[in-house]
Amino acid sequence: MGSGAEFDAIRRLLATWGAAAVGIGDDAAIVDIPAGERLVVSTDATVENVHFRRGWLTAEEIGARAAAAALSDLAAMAATPRGLLVALGLPEEWLGQLDDFARGVGAVAVAAACPIIGGNISASRELTLTLTVLGSAAHPLRRAGAQPGDIIFVTGRLGGAGAAVKALYDGRAPDPAHRVRFASPMPRIREALWLAARGAHAAIDVSDGLLADAAHLARASGVSIALDATALPRVGGVSVDEAAASGEEYELIIAAPREMASLADEFSRTFDLELTAIGTVAAASGEAVTMAGMRGDAHVGHDHLASH
Amino acid sequence: MGSGAEFDAIRRLLATWGAAAVGIGDDAAIVDIPAGERLVVSTDATVENVHFRRGWLTAEEIGARAAAAALSDLAAMAATPRGLLVALGLPEEWLGQLDDFARGVGAVAVAAACPIIGGNISASRELTLTLTVLGSAAHPLRRAGAQPGDIIFVTGRLGGAGAAVKALYDGRAPDPAHRVRFASPMPRIREALWLAARGAHAAIDVSDGLLADAAHLARASGVSIALDATALPRVGGVSVDEAAASGEEYELIIAAPREMASLADEFSRTFDLELTAIGTVAAASGEAVTMAGMRGDAHVGHDHLASH
Repeated sequence: MGSGAEFDAIRRLLATWGAAAVGIGDDAAIVDIPAGERLVVSTDATVENVHFRRGWLTAEEIGARAAAAALSDLAAMAATPRGLLVALGLPEEWLGQLDDFARGVGAVAVAAACPIIGGNISASRELTLTLTVLGSAAHPLRRAGAQPGDIIFVTGRLGGAGAAVKALYDGRAPDPAHRVRFASPMPRIREALWLAARGAHAAIDVSDGLLADAAHLARASGVSIALDATALPRVGGVSVDEAAASGEEYELIIAAPREMASLADEFSRTFDLELTAIGTVAAASGEAVTMAGMRGDAHVGHDHLASH
Repeated sequence: MGSGAEFDAIRRLLATWGAAAVGIGDDAAIVDIPAGERLVVSTDATVENVHFRRGWLTAEEIGARAAAAALSDLAAMAATPRGLLVALGLPEEWLGQLDDFARGVGAVAVAAACPIIGGNISASRELTLTLTVLGSAAHPLRRAGAQPGDIIFVTGRLGGAGAAVKALYDGRAPDPAHRVRFASPMPRIREALWLAARGAHAAIDVSDGLLADAAHLARASGVSIALDATALPRVGGVSVDEAAASGEEYELIIAAPREMASLADEFSRTFDLELTAIGTVAAASGEAVTMAGMRGDAHVGHDHLASH
């Protein structure tokens, strides 16, 4: 892509984003972080044939999903979104769908009230979206805050994303209820802010799978987590094992004081989303995470496609 | 790359970076921006076969060059570096050189006093480094600040990067003095802070080529720039036309009040780098940039390899 084509592509992106894109035109974007708040920043890549295959998702879904995955890291920190930067590696055969990518990214950014503040576009052999998200919080929620006696909660219902990828990988059409969980995840930003404001101690988003991510949280906090397989909220048609291993769900795992269990109903009414107590936190002993009631090996993680 | 290989790769990166990497372990990094300063952020991608070809650069040079290109955007804004995020798309055949990439990125980050605060690693078919840089400044330098009556300065000597790429593209060994300008550019961060503190009005870094980038600055400022081809500081062995079109130089174009010309000697002594007056700013009229004394078409830009 020469600089002419590059500028044309940038113009197309900006036209699609309209008022969702702000302050673009300098070598770097300028963002004001409210006084008393800390900057929270993360970068996340979506690569064709690693995170999805051609034909599994529309270009708009690819854009939306990449934005959701990146913004989910701000949700995990209970940070208010302040800006999104989009670095696009674009093969020539995808150029015609640039507006669709932009629409997908833009829709999720607008839903999260996150301005698009910059980016980069480059030719490449495979489609790559590397999104950087900036947020701010007076007290970012960390992985390391879980305390013995806490309850472990999870938002939403797990298993749909993994079931959809398995079906697609096997060449079957996924159940529509599973597919939407893979193709159109939503970052749980408002939910995280709500829970942090009410005293949540620690959080992580479900990107590698419930068991793997709960283990990250347990290790960072120096605690052990005991999950109850029978309590696990699952989408229809998936087993407990599948729900516990399903990655790229972008739901939140929260460690919170026991008294927050009484807020689950209010949470569900407010966000039209379940908040389910699925385990407890104890002082560290042996395994970081155990899961009673599960068949098979509890140590299941999520692998990207390339390892299949 | 499965999550196991991914975590192994992250461990290798962190081992190579040592104290240069800080605060890694949460879903997002936390950065404190000094009170009274604004956040400045940019993302920049380096893609194999677009920005370089295999065999042209060592893995360490690829890492160093990507970091320099990204940090150069902070220099253009006269921002103090606060953090670097490294998103790596890594083909399997490059996996053995992961430590070399990391060493290259780390060396430039340390030289710029910029902590490495996060990143992402993913399998991919072609090598991609997408770097996001965060900085801060009380008064970021913009493209839009040039005023009629200002002098246009450029740091260093131009043309080496373009001459090296041309030689490599033609299958010749580049002149070593040209090659170093392509393989090992340095972001002019301290130089930019020094010039901004002394009253520079506007800046942009030379990534597309002097003429193209001067035009970006002129258009953003609503002015016209008249460059003097005979004043252009060139590396040995390149023509004025080549120097004016050479991209990815990562030198700075500065618009500054006339009286700053007297600081050029002090600048050169302080940074062991030339600061050369190469033109003047006038009210907008016709072309954004003109260049007296140049042969041929003055409207030369820099194209990435894919357009050759």
